[in-house]
Amino acid sequence: MTPNADPFTTLMDLAHGTLDPERTTLERRLSDMAGYYFADPGSTKHAVEPRQGLGPRNLTEPCEGDDPLIYRVHMIPVAQTNAEIQCSTTVLQPGRVGDEYYMTRGHFHAVRDRSEIYVGLAGEGRLVMATEDGRHAVEPLGPGTVSYVPGGWAHRSVNVGRDRLVFFAAYIGDAGHDYSTIAERGLPVVVVAGDAGPEVVANPRYTA
Amino acid sequence: MTPNADPFTTLMDLAHGTLDPERTTLERRLSDMAGYYFADPGSTKHAVEPRQGLGPRNLTEPCEGDDPLIYRVHMIPVAQTNAEIQCSTTVLQPGRVGDEYYMTRGHFHAVRDRSEIYVGLAGEGRLVMATEDGRHAVEPLGPGTVSYVPGGWAHRSVNVGRDRLVFFAAYIGDAGHDYSTIAERGLPVVVVAGDAGPEVVANPRYTA
Repeated sequence: MTPNADPFTTLMDLAHGTLDPERTTLERRLSDMAGYYFADPGSTKHAVEPRQGLGPRNLTEPCEGDDPLIYRVHMIPVAQTNAEIQCSTTVLQPGRVGDEYYMTRGHFHAVRDRSEIYVGLAGEGRLVMATEDGRHAVEPLGPGTVSYVPGGWAHRSVNVGRDRLVFFAAYIGDAGHDYSTIAERGLPVVVVAGDAGPEVVANPRYTA
Repeated sequence: MTPNADPFTTLMDLAHGTLDPERTTLERRLSDMAGYYFADPGSTKHAVEPRQGLGPRNLTEPCEGDDPLIYRVHMIPVAQTNAEIQCSTTVLQPGRVGDEYYMTRGHFHAVRDRSEIYVGLAGEGRLVMATEDGRHAVEPLGPGTVSYVPGGWAHRSVNVGRDRLVFFAAYIGDAGHDYSTIAERGLPVVVVAGDAGPEVVANPRYTA
């Protein structure tokens, strides 16, 4: 028997990802993503030419003098033990920095073997995963996708559509977050806007 | 690092709860629920008079000579460890046995402190929870509800609407199921069709 909280219910807006009540939210703006894109946010005015008609607006213009919201995470925090399940919704805006679609920072779990489940609710995205030894996997992320992120796999979501990407995630309570490994090494692949739509390409800046 | 399976994605029908691909499914018919309702399935023709216009059809007639499906669980099984998250969808049909709405058997987790998350997708239901020492809680279950089932709390879903109740559940991988405690003792409360809609009433057959 645990000293856990009593049962409680949160209302999740399945289309928008907001919660009622809101508890803890995390927000990442473009300035919080410095170093994550080929085209550095500070120099997006020099980003590659936007490809017309291929996905969401390119940030080349809109972000000059601006610091747009990239994503917001709405959390339902519980005790950080391996008997608990933390959950959250993530709302990832549509957009690109150069050819790279808006994405989350991505992370490993601090406790590496802890797994996670992603449930897509709205929009069109990709779930990019990778192990520390360089294996990678890219899964679809959209309404009704239920993706299993095994222990040891870093995970990042990418919005390849024209609308908000909304998903629900559930992970082991004591998993924790290790953002620094990806911040330093990158992931083996990135998702970019290609001539015929989203393309998964090798990340030239990845440090194996 | 774990020897887990590789990442994989399952497509969940958000309205119907079916999965693609299907892996392991569990089905409970009325005959599987013997002893769970006041009105024993074998004697539903003698169940209390159906209250017209209050919720789904009463089984008094339809189940004579029939063994209707009560619910089906669609599982996405992974390794049974506390680093993993099992998940499933449940599709609970509308209906009643006497005044009692169709419900799942309900269970404690075999490993008592393991928690679970319920995400309502379609329909109108209740999530009935109770501790072994007789505390209880009843939460709403419907589109967008995210309910936290703390460790130590048994849980049962009840369909109080006219349509299928569909929900997604995620629980710690090694939680396991203890059905026998509820089969023997019942839960402190049951949900019945009252004059003005669903009512939570004390379970006269509950063994404290």
